[in-house]
Amino acid sequence: MLKDKFRLQIPGPTPIPPRVQQAMNRPMIGHRDPDCSKLVHNLSLRLGPVFGTQNPVLILTGSGTSALEAAAANTLTEGDEAAVIVTGAFGDRFAKILNSMNVQTHRLDIEWGKACHPEELKTFLKKHPKIKAVFLTYCETSTGVLNPIKTLAETIREHTDALTIVDGVSCIGGVPAGLDEWGVDILVSGSQKALMLPAGLSFAAVGERAWTTIQSNSHPRFYLDFRKYQNSLEQSTTPFTPAVSLLFGLEEVLDMLEEEGLEHVFHRHRLMRDMARAGVKALGLELLANHRDASPTVTSIMGGEQWSVESLRSELRYLGLRVAGGQQHLKGKIFRIGHMGYADPLDVLTALSALEVALARIGAPVETGAGTKAAEEEWIRVSRIDH
Amino acid sequence: MLKDKFRLQIPGPTPIPPRVQQAMNRPMIGHRDPDCSKLVHNLSLRLGPVFGTQNPVLILTGSGTSALEAAAANTLTEGDEAAVIVTGAFGDRFAKILNSMNVQTHRLDIEWGKACHPEELKTFLKKHPKIKAVFLTYCETSTGVLNPIKTLAETIREHTDALTIVDGVSCIGGVPAGLDEWGVDILVSGSQKALMLPAGLSFAAVGERAWTTIQSNSHPRFYLDFRKYQNSLEQSTTPFTPAVSLLFGLEEVLDMLEEEGLEHVFHRHRLMRDMARAGVKALGLELLANHRDASPTVTSIMGGEQWSVESLRSELRYLGLRVAGGQQHLKGKIFRIGHMGYADPLDVLTALSALEVALARIGAPVETGAGTKAAEEEWIRVSRIDH
Repeated sequence: MLKDKFRLQIPGPTPIPPRVQQAMNRPMIGHRDPDCSKLVHNLSLRLGPVFGTQNPVLILTGSGTSALEAAAANTLTEGDEAAVIVTGAFGDRFAKILNSMNVQTHRLDIEWGKACHPEELKTFLKKHPKIKAVFLTYCETSTGVLNPIKTLAETIREHTDALTIVDGVSCIGGVPAGLDEWGVDILVSGSQKALMLPAGLSFAAVGERAWTTIQSNSHPRFYLDFRKYQNSLEQSTTPFTPAVSLLFGLEEVLDMLEEEGLEHVFHRHRLMRDMARAGVKALGLELLANHRDASPTVTSIMGGEQWSVESLRSELRYLGLRVAGGQQHLKGKIFRIGHMGYADPLDVLTALSALEVALARIGAPVETGAGTKAAEEEWIRVSRIDH
Repeated sequence: MLKDKFRLQIPGPTPIPPRVQQAMNRPMIGHRDPDCSKLVHNLSLRLGPVFGTQNPVLILTGSGTSALEAAAANTLTEGDEAAVIVTGAFGDRFAKILNSMNVQTHRLDIEWGKACHPEELKTFLKKHPKIKAVFLTYCETSTGVLNPIKTLAETIREHTDALTIVDGVSCIGGVPAGLDEWGVDILVSGSQKALMLPAGLSFAAVGERAWTTIQSNSHPRFYLDFRKYQNSLEQSTTPFTPAVSLLFGLEEVLDMLEEEGLEHVFHRHRLMRDMARAGVKALGLELLANHRDASPTVTSIMGGEQWSVESLRSELRYLGLRVAGGQQHLKGKIFRIGHMGYADPLDVLTALSALEVALARIGAPVETGAGTKAAEEEWIRVSRIDH
């Protein structure tokens, strides 16, 4: 086999488009140079539609977790009460961050593989009237579940004055977001998922109501202080040295998203999800999430009784396809196929073909061709509607 | 759809491996610098196994045709007699080159889609006892036919003193070659096919018997004079400015071929051919070449009665796959899928999936999944034997 040829279909990092890779190779510029100021200014505005906001989006140099912690550190301090809706490993990470700040944290634990729905959130919120913020995960990377943020944010607004703070790391850029319209207060994301960049940048879209809290919040912070980023942005710059090559790449990514059109980008992601699910089901494998809760960016598939998920992943790797395993208690029980960013329907078909061959090679029961057939038919069906 | 994401599966140029692309970006060096001499020296020797020769291989800066013409211009002159075995558009090109030199050319025209076999060559050779050279095509790119060069070269040696001159442009690097062992006198190739580079370099492996002719041949030539390349090579250099970035890339290509091992490279190409053919047949489409004559590097598929090949190609292009059409009288009648160089079995499955969806979208009769199923089963079958 060609050892260095592989398809990266894990739920992040995702493949870098060649034009983005090229953009990142531009000659380095100083981060206090007027060219860099212009870049920072434009990027923060052009990210707005991706996060569903008129406000400029803050750009931090750090991985997704830096923005998760920043969202907490800028809005809460020791002794405050907050709620975390935990639908998987990344909801759990929010809880860990809050614990490290000595915030009094109330967890709403949802079974992994299911989304949180408004009724259960409502019941939970009623029990905790003093919370100052609710932390939610838009796409839970560890399970492939997409929480219905729009309706959950409405529920929060309806029943409390708490801020709605959302982790959108593994879906922003692949699914619609409406910071302004949905009443979300802070929406954060990272660069290495649907935004088609290497890891290294994180983003925070911040609404008006959140700014009031942020300005007065006493929690100690320096590198992650949103006020510094906002003040610098007013001077078209960043408070600390930014990852300039990633900013070059981000400019190209925004060109690509604008050229395709965000609605088309979202449609492509939904199509990839529906194809992946149709294919997996046709192979007789079980999906972790039900259709209502399934994210357009990543699909989690249950292992079988007669074969090992880790053997399957290692076989897929040999065949030229890299997929992810499960995290925490789902390790060894599921595998996950990412289909976001620089991914198209043919990638889903390639993944299903590889899956069919790999299952056969590890001796698992499989009807070769059945998964690709079902996924192809989904694509054909949807493209007939489009025409 | 992602407009700039596509799979290049035409029979050349072929995709450039990322590590080769990176190698070509090395800082430029002078072509008379000792570093470049070392590079030229090593490359000419390392190309030997790819062409099946102990001799250093000549490296020309030019497209494949430059090496085809060089092979003729260095061995024949006006008034000489030569034979060309024409199995498609590139056999025809040899004939055109010979005509431009006023060589008295005898054509053995074989039906496009079929290979030339020893018996018909033998009969033909007997009719033309005065020929000084026989020109053959190893893989005929226009049809996907692989001529059995080993046995044809034996036939030529047995029945004439003519030189055996072979165009290996669309297969060398993907199939075995034996200049020394098979008694081939000149074997030429280009960089942009199974050798995984952009176009711009061409290669000529030259045997001892050919050198005797070349030294005394009176045909006027300058840029394409093999003697100049050979003399320069003895000084570890080239007679004219070489395409240095492509030499950097070639070094990396040879690393890749050596790391995988030539036998494994050839096995991979045969597997891709067998998968492509099994898939196409299962879809009820007709293959241009029969199994005995089919090249491991490119597969030609007949169009159907009820649909247009050009609509299919344009639909495939929309879906993210680029395949080639037919040439000359096969234009509109066939399409061709390349599977050589930086290509693996999963690429064949991707192409078949795309073909199934495209056929459905243009309203052609197709059983979705049937092609991928058959190709997957071929892969599974072969990998069981391997284990």
